[in-house]
Amino acid sequence: MQNNLFIYNSLSKKKEAFKPIHPPFVGIYVCGPTVYSDTHLGHSRPAITFDLLFRYLTHLGYKVRYVRNITDVGHLENETLGEGEDRIEKKARQEQIEPMEVVQKYVNAYHKNMEQLNTLSPSIEPRAAGHIIEQIELIKTLIKSGYGYESNGSVYFDILKYNEKYRYGKLSGRVLDELMSNTRNIEGQEEKRNSFDFALWKKASPEHLMRWPSPWSVGFPGWHLECSAMSIKYLGEEFDIHGGGIDLQFPHHECEIAQSTAALGKESVHYWMHNNMITINGQKMARSIGNFITLDQLFSGDHPALQQAYSPMTIRFFILQAHYRSTIDFSNEALQAAEKGFQKLMKAIESLKKLKPSDSSTIDVIKLKEKCYEALDDDLNSPIVLSHLFEGVRFINSVLDGSEKIDASGLESLKTLFNTFVFEILGLKDESAGIGDEKLTGELMKIIIDLRQTAKNRKEFEVSDKIRKELNNLGITIKDRKDGTPEWEKAPL
Amino acid sequence: MQNNLFIYNSLSKKKEAFKPIHPPFVGIYVCGPTVYSDTHLGHSRPAITFDLLFRYLTHLGYKVRYVRNITDVGHLENETLGEGEDRIEKKARQEQIEPMEVVQKYVNAYHKNMEQLNTLSPSIEPRAAGHIIEQIELIKTLIKSGYGYESNGSVYFDILKYNEKYRYGKLSGRVLDELMSNTRNIEGQEEKRNSFDFALWKKASPEHLMRWPSPWSVGFPGWHLECSAMSIKYLGEEFDIHGGGIDLQFPHHECEIAQSTAALGKESVHYWMHNNMITINGQKMARSIGNFITLDQLFSGDHPALQQAYSPMTIRFFILQAHYRSTIDFSNEALQAAEKGFQKLMKAIESLKKLKPSDSSTIDVIKLKEKCYEALDDDLNSPIVLSHLFEGVRFINSVLDGSEKIDASGLESLKTLFNTFVFEILGLKDESAGIGDEKLTGELMKIIIDLRQTAKNRKEFEVSDKIRKELNNLGITIKDRKDGTPEWEKAPL
Repeated sequence: MQNNLFIYNSLSKKKEAFKPIHPPFVGIYVCGPTVYSDTHLGHSRPAITFDLLFRYLTHLGYKVRYVRNITDVGHLENETLGEGEDRIEKKARQEQIEPMEVVQKYVNAYHKNMEQLNTLSPSIEPRAAGHIIEQIELIKTLIKSGYGYESNGSVYFDILKYNEKYRYGKLSGRVLDELMSNTRNIEGQEEKRNSFDFALWKKASPEHLMRWPSPWSVGFPGWHLECSAMSIKYLGEEFDIHGGGIDLQFPHHECEIAQSTAALGKESVHYWMHNNMITINGQKMARSIGNFITLDQLFSGDHPALQQAYSPMTIRFFILQAHYRSTIDFSNEALQAAEKGFQKLMKAIESLKKLKPSDSSTIDVIKLKEKCYEALDDDLNSPIVLSHLFEGVRFINSVLDGSEKIDASGLESLKTLFNTFVFEILGLKDESAGIGDEKLTGELMKIIIDLRQTAKNRKEFEVSDKIRKELNNLGITIKDRKDGTPEWEKAPL
Repeated sequence: MQNNLFIYNSLSKKKEAFKPIHPPFVGIYVCGPTVYSDTHLGHSRPAITFDLLFRYLTHLGYKVRYVRNITDVGHLENETLGEGEDRIEKKARQEQIEPMEVVQKYVNAYHKNMEQLNTLSPSIEPRAAGHIIEQIELIKTLIKSGYGYESNGSVYFDILKYNEKYRYGKLSGRVLDELMSNTRNIEGQEEKRNSFDFALWKKASPEHLMRWPSPWSVGFPGWHLECSAMSIKYLGEEFDIHGGGIDLQFPHHECEIAQSTAALGKESVHYWMHNNMITINGQKMARSIGNFITLDQLFSGDHPALQQAYSPMTIRFFILQAHYRSTIDFSNEALQAAEKGFQKLMKAIESLKKLKPSDSSTIDVIKLKEKCYEALDDDLNSPIVLSHLFEGVRFINSVLDGSEKIDASGLESLKTLFNTFVFEILGLKDESAGIGDEKLTGELMKIIIDLRQTAKNRKEFEVSDKIRKELNNLGITIKDRKDGTPEWEKAPL
C-alpha cells in the first residue's frame, strides 16, 4: 500500500513522509476530553482534526485503529503543577452525585455532540479509571528501571535521572534549567526529589473519593500515566501517530514521552500531531473571562456572545476552513461567513444533481481531483481542499447559467469527487436531510398556502376549505393574518 | 417521602411493599448486555422494564442511582458450566479486530438502539474489564474468608463450604443434590473441589487475549464476579433493587448472591426483580434455530420472519402491553396489533389537543389518574395502566363526536394525565415528531398532488405546471403513472 501523505511531526518540527509501521494497519492515539463539564468549542477542534485524519487514512485503504481516551480520574485542577482537587470529584461535590455519575453525564453529552459534528466513533475509547491495573504495572516497571521513586505512599517520576540518559523537553522545547528555576519552593512538594517531578501515583487524602489499592498506598494514578498505559495496551510499544491539542504538549505529552521512553527504552510514537487553539475575539477561551461557549450553546444560540444559532455543520466547516496548525479566531462574523460558505457548497451540490450533460466538457475533473488529494497529502490542508471544491462550485454554477458545459462521464466524475471529498473525507453532511425535512415541510406549506390563496382569489371556496380541513387533520392550523399573508402552525399538546 | 409501590421480590416469591434503605435515595443495579453482537429483541425487554422502574421512581420524587453494567470480558460460551471461549474474543477472531474494538462497536450499536427505544441513560454504566482491580480485591476477601480457593492459578468458589452456613440455590430454587448429580465428571474440571464450583479467576491459556496480572496468575475474572464487585462499588454493601432477565437467575444471580453474601456476611440486595422472556411463535429465540431478530432488523423490516418494519415505539408499546413477569410471544400479528394500539393512542392525543371545553364534565379524571397509579404501584402493571389510558382514549373520542363532554379544568387535568403516564412514565413518544417529518412530507405531497390533479381536471394547466415547477425547485419529481395516480420522488445526488 502506497501513500503520498506528509505529516508535520511536532517532534522533528518538520513535514515527514508518512510511513506506517505495519501497513495496511495504522495506529492512532488521540487525547480525548476530561469529562467534568459540557463539551465546548475547544473540544471540537481535535475531534474534527483527527476525525479528518481517520477518514482520510481509511479512504486511502488503511485499516486504522483509532484510540481516543476518556479521562475520568486523576486530572487535577492545576495541571502544570499536578496539584489541587480532582476535576471530576469537584464537580461531583457541586452536583451532589457520585464521581462516576458525573462521568456518565458528560460522556453522554460529549458523544451526543460528537455525533452532531459528524465525527466517527473511535475504534476504542478507553477510560483511565478502567485501566488502573495497567497503570500500576507501568509504575512497577518505572520503579524497577530506576525512573520512579516512592515517597510517603506516592510515586514520582525522577526527571533529572531521566535527563541523564534521555532528553526531557524534546517535544515542548522546555529547558530543564528553566523548569528548575520556575518551580522551586512550592508548598506540599516536599515529597519530591525535585519540585518539577511529576506524580505517577498519589496517595489519597481521607476525603478523596476515587481510590484504589496499590503496592504503595490507597490512591489514584497521575494524569499523564493513563495515556502511556492505554496506548501501549491497545496500540503496542511502538505506534504510528499520537494526536492532541497543542496545549497538551507541556506538561502532558512531555511527561508521556518520558514515561513511555523510560519504561520501554525506546521512543513509542513515530509522529506527534498537534492541533492549534481556538481563540474568541483574539482572547484565549476561559471560564474566568466569560467567553466560554459550549457546543450546545452554539447550536441553540443561547449565549450572550452569540448573535444567532450556528449549526453543527457550520462549526465543522468553520474549523476545516483553517489548517489545523493555525489558530482560529472565533467571532460571529467569521461563523456567519462559514455558514454562508457551507450553504453555498450545499446549494451547488443540489444544483449538481440537476445538471444536464452536454456532448463536450470545458472542465478537467481529473485535475481537480488530483489537486484535492495533493492538498490533503500536504499535512491535511483542508482549507486548500475547500478552495478547490469551490472552484468546482463556480464551475457548477457556470454550467447552470450556460457559460460552461460538462459531458456525461465528466458529470459522473464530478459527482463522485464531491461525494468523496465533501461527505466522505471532510465529513460534512447535508443538514437539510434532517432538520431539512422541517425545511421541506415549510417549503411544501408555502406551495399549499399559495394554492389555497389562488383558489380563494378565484372564489373556489370548496377548494380552499378542503385544503384547510385536510391540514387540520394533520394537526396544522392556518391563520390568516391582517396583512393577508397566512401563517401556519403545528399544534403542541 | 412516601410510596404505595409493591414489588414482586423474586427471592421471597411475593409482592412486598417497597421501602428504600436511605430515602430519598434509591439504588438499582441491572445486568446489561454482553457486547459481542447486535442488540436483539431479547435485550429490549429488561431495558424497557427497568427504564419504566427508573422513570416511575424518579417521577415519585426519588433520587435514583441506576447502574447498568456492560459485560466486556469473562462471559464464556457455555455460561452454565463457565467453560468455552470468551464470547467477545471469539467475535474478535471472526472479525479480525481487537476484543476492545468488538466492545466499542457493539456498545455503540446498543446505545443507538436504546436511544431509539427511548430508554433513559443509566446513571452509571460500568464495564467489567474496567474493574479488574475491584474484582481482584473481592477475590482476596473471598479467599480470606474461606469461600474461595486457588487451584493451578485459577480461583474457584467453594459452593459446599458456602452451603454449610448459607443456602446456595435460594433464588433459583435449585437443590444442591440435583446440581451434584448433574455436573459430575466433566472434562477439564479437575481443578475444582466440586464440579459445580464456579470460577472467580481463570488462568489464561497462552492464546487468550484479554488478560491481567493477579496474585494467582495472568488471567481474567469469572463472569459472575463483575456484578458483585461493581454493585458494591457504586451502590454500597446493601442496596435496594437488583434487576435482570429471568434467564440470569441461574447460575448468574445465584452465584452473585453467594459471592456477595460470602464476602459481606450479609444479604446485599433487598429486592430482586426479574423480567420474563420473549418467545417467537412460541419458541425460545436462538441463533441456532434461525428465529433470532435484531432490533435493527425489526426497525427496517429486513428479516425473512418479518412481514413489515416495526417502529421503536411499536416495540416499546408491545413490551409494555404485557406485565414484565409474563412471557410475551412475538408474532407479526401481535406486533401489528401493538402498532394499531399505539397509533390509536397517539391519534387520541392529537385529538386531545383540539378538544373544546364545555361548561360541565362527564368524566372523572381524578379517578382515572388514581387507577393509573394503582396499576403502577401493583408491581409495575403497565398493561393495566394502558387499559386505563384507553378508557381515556374512548372518552376523548366520545367528546369529539359529542356524546360526552369535558370542562376546562378537566381538560387540563386530562392533558396532564396523558403527558405524565404516556410520555414521562411509560416513556412512549410521538414518532411523527421525528420520522414523522418524513411522514408529514408524504401527507403534504398527497395534498399537493391532489390539488394538481384537480387543476388538470379543470384544464387549469398554468396551475398544474406551476406546481410541477415549484416541486422541481425543491428537487422533487412527479411521475404520472399509467394508472393515473402520480408518484413522486426526491432526487439523490
